[in-house]
Amino acid sequence: MEINKLIETITQEVLRELGENNAARFAGAGGSKEILPNGVDINNLAKTVDHTVLKPETTRKTIEKFCKEAAEWGFASVCVNPTHVKLAAGLLKGTDVKVCTVIGFPLGANTTFVKAAETRDAIANGAQEVDMVINIGALKDGDYDLISKDIKAVVDAAGGQALVKVIIETCLLTDEEKMKVCLLAKNAGADFVKTSTGMSTGGATVEDIALMRKTVGPQMGVKASTGVNDREIALNLIRAGATRLGTSKGMLIQTGKKPEESSCVNCGNCKQGCPTGNAHLVKDNY
Amino acid sequence: MEINKLIETITQEVLRELGENNAARFAGAGGSKEILPNGVDINNLAKTVDHTVLKPETTRKTIEKFCKEAAEWGFASVCVNPTHVKLAAGLLKGTDVKVCTVIGFPLGANTTFVKAAETRDAIANGAQEVDMVINIGALKDGDYDLISKDIKAVVDAAGGQALVKVIIETCLLTDEEKMKVCLLAKNAGADFVKTSTGMSTGGATVEDIALMRKTVGPQMGVKASTGVNDREIALNLIRAGATRLGTSKGMLIQTGKKPEESSCVNCGNCKQGCPTGNAHLVKDNY
Repeated sequence: MEINKLIETITQEVLRELGENNAARFAGAGGSKEILPNGVDINNLAKTVDHTVLKPETTRKTIEKFCKEAAEWGFASVCVNPTHVKLAAGLLKGTDVKVCTVIGFPLGANTTFVKAAETRDAIANGAQEVDMVINIGALKDGDYDLISKDIKAVVDAAGGQALVKVIIETCLLTDEEKMKVCLLAKNAGADFVKTSTGMSTGGATVEDIALMRKTVGPQMGVKASTGVNDREIALNLIRAGATRLGTSKGMLIQTGKKPEESSCVNCGNCKQGCPTGNAHLVKDNY
Repeated sequence: MEINKLIETITQEVLRELGENNAARFAGAGGSKEILPNGVDINNLAKTVDHTVLKPETTRKTIEKFCKEAAEWGFASVCVNPTHVKLAAGLLKGTDVKVCTVIGFPLGANTTFVKAAETRDAIANGAQEVDMVINIGALKDGDYDLISKDIKAVVDAAGGQALVKVIIETCLLTDEEKMKVCLLAKNAGADFVKTSTGMSTGGATVEDIALMRKTVGPQMGVKASTGVNDREIALNLIRAGATRLGTSKGMLIQTGKKPEESSCVNCGNCKQGCPTGNAHLVKDNY
């Protein structure tokens, strides 16, 4: 018994040494035999995660933290603003983690010319995936020709050097508009449709993911973003058809851990400190 | 007495005929002798207003409405997303109303190259004023060289063909950061500093405007934006040093009318209808 206690103590010490993240990671892996749709591996949800940090006040130090985490956890990509692409590409050189960035983000209300120029610039700086926002006003106007040209221009600018994901901003659209723009994205040669920017009135829902998957068929990528805050939410979105997740909660998704009560809820209102009293965090950390 | 009553009745009838807007406009004009700083005419606050409509779902019909209002009320400009510059420029041809657009909006986290390209593209499409967002993360990093180059690139791209306003996003900055970036904007040759994008955690305050005015001195423009919802707020910001106002409430500012209780409060959460029950509005109208 003394020996067993000693072994347990030493084991816990070693796990602590490895860091809480790694301990949690081991705990979450290899636990389920459920077969998920679209080839997603339930024991490696990390591989579906675009580890995302897009707040405008993001510092280089935060980008370094996100890149380190992405490499350690084996995320699909880091998703950063264009200003941070070169830094992230340098940091992730030699890893499997892709650099994803955003185009015409988050309003999508700039010109096609600028979206294409931004795509070329991002790829020159090292981006391997680009998440572009559609022209939402044009969709409301029924100007499908403009929407198509807009997406096509980014696909052409990417020129096969970067995956193109098309953010449709589901929270602002009717179901008919969602379906219409998914088909326009598919026809324009985009690789993914994606729900949300995270900067409007809502995020990914199971219903929207199911609708998008049904609309684009089994081959195209579907990315759920905004509000993908834990493993349960992630699994429900994947079961509905998502193949990629945009989130900064990839570690919780991989491990199944719930966010600690004291952690940041991303209310976005922190200035000097946390207005909810929840988080002992400086702004750089969320 | 009968004659006087008749005159009053006829006068009111005539004003009603001219339309409520015009009646209100006349009521607000010519009423005060207060001398405002920086040459702002208290009886023509409309001339300080950038009539602003930047929501991503804005339709062409809404742009037409805003342009018509701007011409009728004599606003300084309409401020629209880049995708709507060409339309607005066509509609406002032959009027005194300028077309203003936004660059790197609202995050400011794209590359200098793209901000400059977007500026040139906007001017080619008819923009006469450009409101650019600084690289906020670079400010947090203390990378003043990047901030300066970023602003300078837009000033150079504007090439004297468009006024350049520099949005510093006050709600995310310390007072030291606000002062620092105001000086960088001034040194880079920008025409204005501006408080807010309207898409972050706060808007213009009297304290921030006073700080910005004190920092840049009496010659440079200072634009207060976000939350400038009535005449009282507008006057306080102007008294503190603002020379331009970014708002969609220019009519209320000119007339001194308070928003009707049933009108839109810009909560931004409307989907099928108004969640506050306040507004009998479709989304196009806010």
